[in-house]
Amino acid sequence: MAEFTVSFDGFGPVQVPGGSLLTEAAVRAGVQIAQPCGGQGRCGRCAVQILGGADAAGGVRRRSTLRLSAADVAAGYALACQAVVEGDAQVIVPTQETLDRALTTDRMVAEVTVPAGYDPQRDQTIRRLYLTLPPPTLDDQRDDWSRLQTALRQELVARAQTGIENLQISLPLLRQLGSVLRAGDWQVTAVIDVGEPPGGSKTSGRLIALLPGHTETPLLGLAIDIGTTTVSVWLVDLLSGEVLAQAAEYNRQIRCGEDVISRAIYASKNNGQAELRQLVLQSINTLIERVGQKVGKDQRSEIRDLEIAQSPISNLQSHIYKATIVGNSMMMHLLLGIPAESIRLSPFVTAVNHPPTFTAAEIGLDMHPAGTVICLPGVASYVGADITAGALSSGLDDALAVSLFMDIGTNGEIVLGGREWLVTCACSAGPAFEGAGVQDGMRATRGAIEEVWIDGRTFEPTLRVIGNEKPRGLCGSGLISLLAELFLTGVIDKGGHLNQHLDTKRIRQGENGPEYVVAWADESWHGRDITITHVDIDNLIRAKAAVYAGMAVLAESVGVPLDAVEQVLIGGSFGKYINVEKGIQIGLLPDKPWEQFKFLGNTAVLGAYYALLSQTAQQRISDIAARMTYIELSADNSFYEAFTSALFLPHTEMSRFPSVGQGMEIERLGD
Amino acid sequence: MAEFTVSFDGFGPVQVPGGSLLTEAAVRAGVQIAQPCGGQGRCGRCAVQILGGADAAGGVRRRSTLRLSAADVAAGYALACQAVVEGDAQVIVPTQETLDRALTTDRMVAEVTVPAGYDPQRDQTIRRLYLTLPPPTLDDQRDDWSRLQTALRQELVARAQTGIENLQISLPLLRQLGSVLRAGDWQVTAVIDVGEPPGGSKTSGRLIALLPGHTETPLLGLAIDIGTTTVSVWLVDLLSGEVLAQAAEYNRQIRCGEDVISRAIYASKNNGQAELRQLVLQSINTLIERVGQKVGKDQRSEIRDLEIAQSPISNLQSHIYKATIVGNSMMMHLLLGIPAESIRLSPFVTAVNHPPTFTAAEIGLDMHPAGTVICLPGVASYVGADITAGALSSGLDDALAVSLFMDIGTNGEIVLGGREWLVTCACSAGPAFEGAGVQDGMRATRGAIEEVWIDGRTFEPTLRVIGNEKPRGLCGSGLISLLAELFLTGVIDKGGHLNQHLDTKRIRQGENGPEYVVAWADESWHGRDITITHVDIDNLIRAKAAVYAGMAVLAESVGVPLDAVEQVLIGGSFGKYINVEKGIQIGLLPDKPWEQFKFLGNTAVLGAYYALLSQTAQQRISDIAARMTYIELSADNSFYEAFTSALFLPHTEMSRFPSVGQGMEIERLGD
Repeated sequence: MAEFTVSFDGFGPVQVPGGSLLTEAAVRAGVQIAQPCGGQGRCGRCAVQILGGADAAGGVRRRSTLRLSAADVAAGYALACQAVVEGDAQVIVPTQETLDRALTTDRMVAEVTVPAGYDPQRDQTIRRLYLTLPPPTLDDQRDDWSRLQTALRQELVARAQTGIENLQISLPLLRQLGSVLRAGDWQVTAVIDVGEPPGGSKTSGRLIALLPGHTETPLLGLAIDIGTTTVSVWLVDLLSGEVLAQAAEYNRQIRCGEDVISRAIYASKNNGQAELRQLVLQSINTLIERVGQKVGKDQRSEIRDLEIAQSPISNLQSHIYKATIVGNSMMMHLLLGIPAESIRLSPFVTAVNHPPTFTAAEIGLDMHPAGTVICLPGVASYVGADITAGALSSGLDDALAVSLFMDIGTNGEIVLGGREWLVTCACSAGPAFEGAGVQDGMRATRGAIEEVWIDGRTFEPTLRVIGNEKPRGLCGSGLISLLAELFLTGVIDKGGHLNQHLDTKRIRQGENGPEYVVAWADESWHGRDITITHVDIDNLIRAKAAVYAGMAVLAESVGVPLDAVEQVLIGGSFGKYINVEKGIQIGLLPDKPWEQFKFLGNTAVLGAYYALLSQTAQQRISDIAARMTYIELSADNSFYEAFTSALFLPHTEMSRFPSVGQGMEIERLGD
Repeated sequence: MAEFTVSFDGFGPVQVPGGSLLTEAAVRAGVQIAQPCGGQGRCGRCAVQILGGADAAGGVRRRSTLRLSAADVAAGYALACQAVVEGDAQVIVPTQETLDRALTTDRMVAEVTVPAGYDPQRDQTIRRLYLTLPPPTLDDQRDDWSRLQTALRQELVARAQTGIENLQISLPLLRQLGSVLRAGDWQVTAVIDVGEPPGGSKTSGRLIALLPGHTETPLLGLAIDIGTTTVSVWLVDLLSGEVLAQAAEYNRQIRCGEDVISRAIYASKNNGQAELRQLVLQSINTLIERVGQKVGKDQRSEIRDLEIAQSPISNLQSHIYKATIVGNSMMMHLLLGIPAESIRLSPFVTAVNHPPTFTAAEIGLDMHPAGTVICLPGVASYVGADITAGALSSGLDDALAVSLFMDIGTNGEIVLGGREWLVTCACSAGPAFEGAGVQDGMRATRGAIEEVWIDGRTFEPTLRVIGNEKPRGLCGSGLISLLAELFLTGVIDKGGHLNQHLDTKRIRQGENGPEYVVAWADESWHGRDITITHVDIDNLIRAKAAVYAGMAVLAESVGVPLDAVEQVLIGGSFGKYINVEKGIQIGLLPDKPWEQFKFLGNTAVLGAYYALLSQTAQQRISDIAARMTYIELSADNSFYEAFTSALFLPHTEMSRFPSVGQGMEIERLGD
């Protein structure tokens, strides 16, 4: 097949075979082009401009022009993932949406208190033991490993801790054993994990590290949450339980797909699986370095002059002996490098819901290579460890009252129940609430409209923008707010249809049908109108309907009316910024008094933190995973009925939302 | 420091800093020089000739001329390990003693029968299970790993085998899981190890391999004996128990030292540890390849068309799922890359007597990378797994009668006892019986004198030489035979002193004192006289005295006279060729009737073979290691007394050797 030359603006030209996609040529040229939908041609974010026009003249054939405006098409724009190279081509890559990491990080920092009564001697599986061994003599020729085991067991008994039947040692540690024992003149500091080791029994322990002398090596741990959008890492002192530092950044996998489905598709192509694994490892390891630096700055006096010879990682990182990881099932599979194709395709099964315990070296985390890494268990393809951990940290699994736990992010997962029973489901809400699938949607970063008020007489909006800048688009909370206001002021009706008879220029006929202008071009950051179209509204209503229908089906499945729910626990960083009243007004949240809602922030990482500290908490998460009944909505007929009923604002049955009816009356009385 | 040029005959010149040893220059030049004593300057085998003389003129200073004859010294010979480069030098490396591998291998092949009543379903820890899983549906969304575990447990229950509480899977296997299950359309062949896994409990199992479809993958295993001199590998069919092939070769570590002490010294220098590990791995992996080829030739019809995708090892090797390894403690440490310095130095302790179970990939064996590798347990620095395995395969541990087990090789290990009790010790016999430490000693290979008869009147010897060739030297059995004959014919007295008044030219004053000429130069392979010197005789007597004293101390320690011993079990390949009568005559073996001796050949590899087949046998070896009482002779005062008493032929107390007294009388009557 013929080869053609493709030049990307500012990069050297590359040769590719005819029939290649522009995204493939970009990889070869070292040009990064974001593909939020994973290269399916659905999101339109990979649009590039072809010099000479996207046709025979420009050397590129467009397989699809979806999401491109007529003007874009005329200007020679093409979706890089749908553009086939059929001749020499020159390509201009527009500046990509940049991810403002600092802002996100700041918004992520949570206030955490150490669980009351935390006792590392009882709760923590990682132990630091100071041992003094009798030196060998001609009358006592026990081998080094037996000698050390005896001393370890005696010390554990002396501290009145559970005896250990079986102690594991790795080959690398066996190789160091003799020299460490002798370097410390038979005084050593042992770091062991007395938790259930990989595949072992409950009376087993594992030696992680052995240091010469009695040294106050800090015992550090990590709680890691791998969100589809954001990765969060907490550095924890395992002895005090204190969170020493937190850091978060966008999951570097984002450029390979914004939602889990897009990532799965990306993973199944070429070397996507390995690339996605490396990207999330880069995110995590960068964050580990960052939390380490924070502690290094803030607490240098406490954690200092500790050295592990020839360690390829920093001193501080080498004292991280344990990590707990949560994330949805897809994120967990991608981290572990386990193909996740079956998660995406019916009947939607994972390779593993409860991964075994690994060492850091096996996973690739920059901490002590023999440190314990616990991937907490999930329940199903779309109810992962983030939800089981959230069920723990929100207190749901121990609640006496019927409670509802929701984590609305890229997906919407819901758990209903309490101490006695738990049912769960996942609503394919789609990423609408994270700003994707909406024309002017964006993530909750600088320039995002996060709240909207519409005047009931003029239909003019008032906006609150993150960072107090000119608006660039709408993030999830902004979209919910906007939808509620449009509905309450009658700009749209129960079915989401724009009222084109209102006296305002903001409602108009756009390229893709009717739309409402949220900000005019001269007010916006990019000089283009920011609008919400009929299609966007439809997507949002479908998303909220999926979530509400999920709740309804769960409630029905256990014969408990939604009214019986006594508290609504909302997890996920998205939940933290949602306006409850508006969530109720559009029918996303059940109609409950304010005081019954609890906004808990990142319940996933909090659950990981609890499990990091306490083996009881870890066991509780396993128990949650085991006792949750998962309901597959796509196999449930009642779901479609509930979904259809929920495709209205707030719902077909207004009796389910008495407060909204009142609100509308008040709004109209005000007219 | 100045650099000098050293040229080795036939190799390019190399630059080395002044002060380097010739052995170091040789490594740089790629020249192999054997160092049987590990570079201590004791054995004299690394002698090389310096052109221009070994002094300032030749550019080389000799630190020692030990073991060099006056003629050698005059001819410019130097010990490479004791020759310091102080100028440019030209070196001639004499042809090294070549190791005749084929011969050794042939002599090693043992006739083995499968243990009576071997039942892989009961005895074998490696199991092959054919599983048919229900495919996932929307009503059955269990994850792949849970689904597989359920099927595995059900199959084990159906076959009425012990249930498994905890099943381990590795990350690499988790990554393949989904595709293998689907490639086999939910029919798979699982290979699991139900034995005690690394650090796990006894109700644990470990998934080693998963193959699509129901395939008759052979279940192969290896029994490996790492001798100081010889490495032996048996390839075993784990289902039938049959030994499919055997192979042996000299341990490639030999060139770094002939005995364990020399190897320990070599290991402690430069990168010696890593080099020794690689050398023994090369030996083992070469033998694995060789046994594989033998089976490939002989039994191609039985084991065929089995493929593991992307396996870097051959098809056959990828079906080797288990290995058991025996060897003395030093060999085990060197294989595992664990520093063994403490074994060599008082108080003589190992890093580990009972290594944990590893996978083949951890050790570096060319078999299935996830295959189980069991290093059987030893007891002490000088009583290793070869002895515990030998105690099993010789039946010692189950004997009702008081029994003595001896393995006389590079070291001499002795076990006394039976079903009720076991005591053991190691005699630092030195490698005299393997031909080292004796001027004309050599290994039992082509050209070695293996038996000697001396005419009581003429004092002329008759020789039997391995391979029926011209003699090159004396191997262990030849030395014992010679010593006995010298004694019985009065050439030497009880104290080992040569009778210089006898009428024979064979007794003469040599360079190193009195000596007896075993073969004249014109009869020998190399055209030099083969002699046994007074020093050699002394070394041999000291070696046999150490062994006998060991036995005596063991017997004394338990208050059982040596007379009470009802059977003598002799292991080790050396034992196979020893002449019992002559062994008794020199006082190496206790004076017992012929029928009480059993020559068992390589009891170590046989024990490894039994442990490979049966978990009961493996457990018995662990029990042996646990219940053996080890007596450290260097800490035992009675040993010196017993040793001194044994420094005579056959012993100070002739009453201990009544048959020898009679033999001497008969010999003299014959005069």
